Amino acid sequence: MTMEIDVNTQESGGIDDFALHWMEGGIVAPEGFLASGIAAGIKKSGRRDVCVVAAQESVPVAAVFTQSSMAAPPVTITRAHLADGRARAVVVNAGNANACTGAAGHADARAMAETAAEQLGCEPSDIAVSSTGVIGVPMPMQVVLSGIREAVSALDSATGDAAAEAIMTTDTFVKQTAVTVEVEGRTFVVGGMAKGSGMIMPNMATMLAFLTCDAPLSSASCDSMLREAVDESFNRITIDSDTSTNDMCMLMANGAEEGEAVEQGGPEFDAISVAVKHVCTELAKMIVRDGEGATKFIEVIVCGAASDKDADLAAKSIANSPLFKTAIFGADANWGRVAMAVGKSAAKVDQDRLEVTFAGITTCRDGMAVAFDEVEAAEALSKKSIEVVVDLHLGDGTATVWTCDLSYEYVRINGEYRT
Amino acid sequence: MTMEIDVNTQESGGIDDFALHWMEGGIVAPEGFLASGIAAGIKKSGRRDVCVVAAQESVPVAAVFTQSSMAAPPVTITRAHLADGRARAVVVNAGNANACTGAAGHADARAMAETAAEQLGCEPSDIAVSSTGVIGVPMPMQVVLSGIREAVSALDSATGDAAAEAIMTTDTFVKQTAVTVEVEGRTFVVGGMAKGSGMIMPNMATMLAFLTCDAPLSSASCDSMLREAVDESFNRITIDSDTSTNDMCMLMANGAEEGEAVEQGGPEFDAISVAVKHVCTELAKMIVRDGEGATKFIEVIVCGAASDKDADLAAKSIANSPLFKTAIFGADANWGRVAMAVGKSAAKVDQDRLEVTFAGITTCRDGMAVAFDEVEAAEALSKKSIEVVVDLHLGDGTATVWTCDLSYEYVRINGEYRT
Repeated sequence: MTMEIDVNTQESGGIDDFALHWMEGGIVAPEGFLASGIAAGIKKSGRRDVCVVAAQESVPVAAVFTQSSMAAPPVTITRAHLADGRARAVVVNAGNANACTGAAGHADARAMAETAAEQLGCEPSDIAVSSTGVIGVPMPMQVVLSGIREAVSALDSATGDAAAEAIMTTDTFVKQTAVTVEVEGRTFVVGGMAKGSGMIMPNMATMLAFLTCDAPLSSASCDSMLREAVDESFNRITIDSDTSTNDMCMLMANGAEEGEAVEQGGPEFDAISVAVKHVCTELAKMIVRDGEGATKFIEVIVCGAASDKDADLAAKSIANSPLFKTAIFGADANWGRVAMAVGKSAAKVDQDRLEVTFAGITTCRDGMAVAFDEVEAAEALSKKSIEVVVDLHLGDGTATVWTCDLSYEYVRINGEYRT
Repeated sequence: MTMEIDVNTQESGGIDDFALHWMEGGIVAPEGFLASGIAAGIKKSGRRDVCVVAAQESVPVAAVFTQSSMAAPPVTITRAHLADGRARAVVVNAGNANACTGAAGHADARAMAETAAEQLGCEPSDIAVSSTGVIGVPMPMQVVLSGIREAVSALDSATGDAAAEAIMTTDTFVKQTAVTVEVEGRTFVVGGMAKGSGMIMPNMATMLAFLTCDAPLSSASCDSMLREAVDESFNRITIDSDTSTNDMCMLMANGAEEGEAVEQGGPEFDAISVAVKHVCTELAKMIVRDGEGATKFIEVIVCGAASDKDADLAAKSIANSPLFKTAIFGADANWGRVAMAVGKSAAKVDQDRLEVTFAGITTCRDGMAVAFDEVEAAEALSKKSIEVVVDLHLGDGTATVWTCDLSYEYVRINGEYRT
């Protein structure tokens, strides 16, 4: 089953249109990758909680990690293991973040890599480790290690469903996708899965994303592609402005496509970049749609800024404003809160030029109110997906940020006493 | 009626203990100041909405304003009028912020100053203008100007109650205080009033504060005193990280005490500085207690930071984190969210040294969980005032920030559709 996807490659700096097609399989859609997700018993619910994604040998890999200075042991260990740009597999557990766990936490993350390596017959340094869940609680290592052994035994190429399920915390749906991209007579496949802003009491959200690709790419190419893609996808989303200790996004490329090595600067590289960016963007949007308590998906577009950086500052200030987010929850075309959020950002602003449009309805022009039909606006803002466009009328800078509204449910999920 | 106040002047760098005593009268407690608050008809509720605070002649003044690049016309006009460091009076209206109102808004703010000046017999440039309320709606100038005339006629020295009431929006209580301070055989009086995070649909909160003092101070002294006080009071609070277009804090000093001019560096200057800081701090805490939907007052203290700036970054990151604020709402000693917020801040952190204490209960030490009695913790966190102490164990840097929790009521107040 495939489905044509409309991709404007102009956005990504490309000059050609690459035909992207959706395909089934998620993380194992690219040939040669195996995955599994099993229930080891870390989650009290008994749901799947250990996942392994593996290539058939050590392959080029790149990853980006949380900027938090409280980065969890698995982040530190994985950063070291991927320093040589190669990995055979990633092992992920949900239900315990192995964060704020001190020296024991580091030993536990190392033991996870060692156990996976032993089962797969590779070096521990070829294993990436990732954890998500409760903070500050020692890892139940017996359960975790037997889970890893079971997950390695269960590896297959049939579907990424179980793997994508095993990395979920309070995510309400599985997040995975895959696309093929055709270029110069060759076809490449990029697959991915992610988990978003779920909450394992008593903790913060963690964002994890894993991508696979069958192109013959170098580690450096993976890195450059992934960084650009993350910057335009996962770095464009915000649920509540909070950053986890465990965030990680990783791309493995096994070269199963078997053609000539793909070099930076060529059309194949550009095509695969577009596919990677597309997969990252789809996963990022899924994370926002599944944001804690989210009732609406919000796209904030700032244009006409003095620079792209200014547009980004203004867009993030709007998307992170609790007052803006509650207004959208209330279906209120409250452009005053957009003006406030733009004003408090460091972006250059001429307040007599500000223009704000909610779901196609202009509410503010030249920095002043524009009469609009309140009933029509309330109706437009009651939809599940809302676009807010802010034109600063100062230059060519643009930025897009995706976020969700702030609802009673967000307060309930996060205010509930631990039991 | 007076009441002794315990003031630790060590905190403010002083070496002596100055006896501060609370007194009645608020903004008109210092001799020679007059105030009034009347109902002009700007608020639909019919409540007081125009206030004037006046000295008997033009006196030294200082003010700090919102950093927003969307600063409202009254902010721009007042900044210009106070450039010479002198003012006779401030006129404030609630119910309309005169923000995002373009050239007409500037003309309206100017007309407010002109009308007050005419009634008081002074220059328009001796009048400060301040507005709070709905954004992007033209000012109902006929009502506003007749309100100003009525308010000037009503000026008296009896009490600041009506004035403090007239600057409220959805504040649930009047915010005012006054203290006397004795030093070198002299007694000075500092009074003040503020409004906080109320919401006039469909708008953001605005913070306004006005202080009066009877000391013979220069404009430069007022300025230096006010900036230091604001930095340690109003700049220490956060409700929801959002900054208004209309924020303003102003100090007038009329010299009615009639002693020798108070010079910077002397004990009188230090004593008055302590009193100004005390009044600002009390008003700032009142604003937090009356935060939108607040059920709890939270004091976040970060110590042991590499620098005061680092402590400030960490404390504000914690206090602005929606995940932290919802945890406190839920009476949850969720130190993982504190670790997360510290980690995402730019403050230098050694995660193996982090110590977190909620309401006296240590929950994390050396970056790891400490066993604590959950029932005791839940009970301690159910109180109305919560202290959270974070020790980074890196240096001497400290900072304190006051905030409130994030409740269902915050979402209700701000998500309610405009009607």
